Amino acid sequence: MPRYDAPVRDMQFIFHDVLSLQNYSNLEGFSEATPDIIDQILEEGGKFAKEVLFPLNSVGDQQGCVRNDDASVKTPDGFPDAYKQFVENGWPLLSKSVEHGGQGLPRLLAIALSEMVSSANMAFGMYPGLTSGAYEALMAGGSDEQKAKYGPKMASGEWAGTMNLTEPQCGTDLGLIKTKAVPQSDGSYKITGQKIWISGGEQDLTDNIIHLVLARIEGAPEGIKGISLFVVPKYIVNEDGSLGERNAVSCGGLEEKMGIHGNATCVMNYDEATGWLVGEEHKGMRTMFIMMNEARLGVGLQGLAQAEVAYQNAVDFANDRLQSRSLTGPKAPDKPADPIIVHPDVRRMLLDCKAFIEGARLFTYWTALHGDLLHQSPDEKVREKAGDYMALMTPVVKAFLTDRGLKACNDALQLHGGSGFTREWGMEQFVRDVRITLIYEGTNGIQALDLVGRKLAANGGRAVFTFFAEIDDFIGANEDNEELAPFIEGLKDAKAKLQDGTTWLMQNGMSNFNNAGAASTDYLHLFGLTALAYMWAKMAKTAVEKRGSDPYYDDKLVTGRYYISRILPETAAHLAKLKTGADPLMALEAERF
Amino acid sequence: MPRYDAPVRDMQFIFHDVLSLQNYSNLEGFSEATPDIIDQILEEGGKFAKEVLFPLNSVGDQQGCVRNDDASVKTPDGFPDAYKQFVENGWPLLSKSVEHGGQGLPRLLAIALSEMVSSANMAFGMYPGLTSGAYEALMAGGSDEQKAKYGPKMASGEWAGTMNLTEPQCGTDLGLIKTKAVPQSDGSYKITGQKIWISGGEQDLTDNIIHLVLARIEGAPEGIKGISLFVVPKYIVNEDGSLGERNAVSCGGLEEKMGIHGNATCVMNYDEATGWLVGEEHKGMRTMFIMMNEARLGVGLQGLAQAEVAYQNAVDFANDRLQSRSLTGPKAPDKPADPIIVHPDVRRMLLDCKAFIEGARLFTYWTALHGDLLHQSPDEKVREKAGDYMALMTPVVKAFLTDRGLKACNDALQLHGGSGFTREWGMEQFVRDVRITLIYEGTNGIQALDLVGRKLAANGGRAVFTFFAEIDDFIGANEDNEELAPFIEGLKDAKAKLQDGTTWLMQNGMSNFNNAGAASTDYLHLFGLTALAYMWAKMAKTAVEKRGSDPYYDDKLVTGRYYISRILPETAAHLAKLKTGADPLMALEAERF
Repeated sequence: MPRYDAPVRDMQFIFHDVLSLQNYSNLEGFSEATPDIIDQILEEGGKFAKEVLFPLNSVGDQQGCVRNDDASVKTPDGFPDAYKQFVENGWPLLSKSVEHGGQGLPRLLAIALSEMVSSANMAFGMYPGLTSGAYEALMAGGSDEQKAKYGPKMASGEWAGTMNLTEPQCGTDLGLIKTKAVPQSDGSYKITGQKIWISGGEQDLTDNIIHLVLARIEGAPEGIKGISLFVVPKYIVNEDGSLGERNAVSCGGLEEKMGIHGNATCVMNYDEATGWLVGEEHKGMRTMFIMMNEARLGVGLQGLAQAEVAYQNAVDFANDRLQSRSLTGPKAPDKPADPIIVHPDVRRMLLDCKAFIEGARLFTYWTALHGDLLHQSPDEKVREKAGDYMALMTPVVKAFLTDRGLKACNDALQLHGGSGFTREWGMEQFVRDVRITLIYEGTNGIQALDLVGRKLAANGGRAVFTFFAEIDDFIGANEDNEELAPFIEGLKDAKAKLQDGTTWLMQNGMSNFNNAGAASTDYLHLFGLTALAYMWAKMAKTAVEKRGSDPYYDDKLVTGRYYISRILPETAAHLAKLKTGADPLMALEAERF
Repeated sequence: MPRYDAPVRDMQFIFHDVLSLQNYSNLEGFSEATPDIIDQILEEGGKFAKEVLFPLNSVGDQQGCVRNDDASVKTPDGFPDAYKQFVENGWPLLSKSVEHGGQGLPRLLAIALSEMVSSANMAFGMYPGLTSGAYEALMAGGSDEQKAKYGPKMASGEWAGTMNLTEPQCGTDLGLIKTKAVPQSDGSYKITGQKIWISGGEQDLTDNIIHLVLARIEGAPEGIKGISLFVVPKYIVNEDGSLGERNAVSCGGLEEKMGIHGNATCVMNYDEATGWLVGEEHKGMRTMFIMMNEARLGVGLQGLAQAEVAYQNAVDFANDRLQSRSLTGPKAPDKPADPIIVHPDVRRMLLDCKAFIEGARLFTYWTALHGDLLHQSPDEKVREKAGDYMALMTPVVKAFLTDRGLKACNDALQLHGGSGFTREWGMEQFVRDVRITLIYEGTNGIQALDLVGRKLAANGGRAVFTFFAEIDDFIGANEDNEELAPFIEGLKDAKAKLQDGTTWLMQNGMSNFNNAGAASTDYLHLFGLTALAYMWAKMAKTAVEKRGSDPYYDDKLVTGRYYISRILPETAAHLAKLKTGADPLMALEAERF
């Protein structure tokens, strides 16, 4: 049986030592986030994830969700009770606004909690995760009445929220949406259409489900500019907040999937369901994007989270499994064979995971910190930079962390040999579950296009140039530190390559958009590798300073040096590939593949 | 629903144009393999794979195998009938020896058939695949009596064969085997022990199952030098060839696995089962290795085969799915959106698959041709080189083709977006099925160790130096051909890197074996990438010569140039990683992971 223990020490290192959250105590929310409070959240959250959620992970996988004949959906045994505890303990309220009963702590802490939940039980974590996304969208785009009506119960998790975008004929291309909204005399709309792949569209965890639905108001312009957003509760909410009549929305079926069986992926049928417009007519995409950006960061985090739990079990296996002798002579001569962790190639798989996970964790948390600064900083310059970074880093976090997260889960499975392929060891579930993260909330290819097509160019490249300048400043300030030499050298080289790739894109991507498309995925990976090199350099700097007090810091440097010498060289291949331009990709006629 | 069509045209290109099998017609077996016969085998084999085996692929996945209370095993609906047809059509006999009723054709043709079977239904293909492996081992190590007794029925597929190596405490490290063999006065042995992960250990396809079992004769030396090989039939075979009493071997349970559900993965209990020694006492590993080498080539082929079928369906999806517009303006203005194949990043996934598959196919077939030459050539020099190449290339074919095969299946799934993650589209089955190929018959890490630790060093590096010389000759002979310039340039660069890595290994791997272990996987990938560059250069040369007669040859050049410009640059990263030496991997204490 696999295990999960929250990586609390690593999170503390990031919060207290690297990001030094105590320095932001002048900001709203942060003032409450004292080191003690942070530690308590990490400890208790980790305990809940380990003791309540993780034991249900394989149960959820084996049982899956079941749609009953009355169109209700049963989640796996134990899910309703665990969800009840999750709400009763107040976990969803961590970073929600005080006005809705929340604790108002920085979202960064909710991200840390979310990592633990996603490691322990990704299918479970999607229920509250999407609810938070829907809550944020309503808060951003909804009327005061809507906020008051749905806010508190969604903030607490008593009610769930969903995102209804996809239809059979459209996933990426939401301009093709057909779901109709017909205005009624009372200001509401009748919504009719079919949505697919709706996570948590129906379940038995909450009293009500607040669906956010993209639809086209009769007579709206064609394409993406005619899409509006509606709130469609499963049960109509009365003026006094009580639940009224059942709305005409129901689950028409569940998808059979490769993984995340514990999460109900629903076909949702809207049959003149009553809904209310959120924000302005035809401007639904704007609000939906707020939700998607939150969600995309969360998906990147899922990639990292599944890598973490898979890695932990691979470490156990590598220390426990006795097989063959070290190439340099027996290391456990009293045993029939050495533990396989003596083998360099086994360590390669472990360290590929470890160096990725620790770098990616800081990258995600550092990005999320900018999200908090964007909302809380009184300094306009800080807010501008934070907004730039959030926009620029989100597609990288989403796609790079899930691509590499899948690789990490596969490495962890691989290290188990035949056991990795069998159900009982649990490794293959991690690979199946994490697989969706490369797809949903915009495929990784779409993230790459978003990065090169939109995020790089925004404001004349302000975001990426700010990032380059920040890296240059760091290099300049630490170039003379001999202990940091490999990190500075690696970062310098990677940043030069990223800059080269960026320049190439700016020169060639505009004249022929296919050049940008052809370069996009390699550029995103080059970006992600460089960003992690920067994160590792930051961690190394802190570790060098703290060194001596705890062997933890020495381990950090060892892992960081592994990243620089054994992972970062991949930048060269990505740069070479992205600079080929579109020709090698476009030369073959479509029918000749 | 997915589809499969055998890539007959591509196989013909390899057999007729690139390998030019007609030039070997002076050799036994090859003389019968006229172009007409080859074409007929490809056409008919492809038809059988498409029409009989492929429709059972998802059936097998959904139903899996069931162990009944009497320890018998039921394979999925349709498997017994398909197997019966497979045997009746004589497919297993293609390359089996004439003496056992076979057609005596080159094994290369059996490899082509095997590719088609493995694309259409990998779980099914494992039953005859392992039977062939067991047959070859018995032919290589068995007595004349054993060959006569088991040969014909195993050759035809009327009886199946299995390989029994793994035990709970040992997979890679077979020296830890505990299964006991006690000699009896009649020359037989009583075999007692438990074997796990035995593919096809029990099934309802054949009248008898011939188990080859590794066990330790009482009093044998410890470790790998005390392991003997036994033949243990499910039903004892009488002198007249009829089936006698049921042997004391039974299936104790089936593994629940990530994929290949249609193949029964059995726990096999031997309870004083009657067995007979194959070959010499304590020399069982030698014969088993013959079987494993055959099997390893077959596993690499499975990686390629799953990539092929996944790719075909990705091509269909990319041409059918309408979503968004081309970045350079609408390409199908009469439709609501363009087919997604207009997007460079979609083509990246397709061409990564296509360029890998076509290069890998030639690499496998070219290697298999050396297997035939090893057996058939009258020229000792040719046989020596063929043996060297078989030994050197086998771990590369096994590990490189399965690592990249998994990537290709994942790319093909990814291209499908959300549909890829759902059962009904069939893509996720390819990813789950192919996953085992990185593990069984020696994990890919073990293949890499075999390559750097054994195969490179054998005979003072004769095999690898011969290979380098062959590449140099090719470069020298074609350097002036302008049409081949990108291929020659790419090959030259890759070969220089591989030679650099080889030299580094020879200089550093002997003084510290951990340096070899730390470099092994990256070296193997550098080798595989270079080998495919050579294969692409060979194909390009042929395509340039044949050009004009068929647009097929132009497509070949386009695909090949993609390989050179967009895949081959990965060599640099592998070289940089392998040259770090062992330190980055060994620095962290085992308990600090």
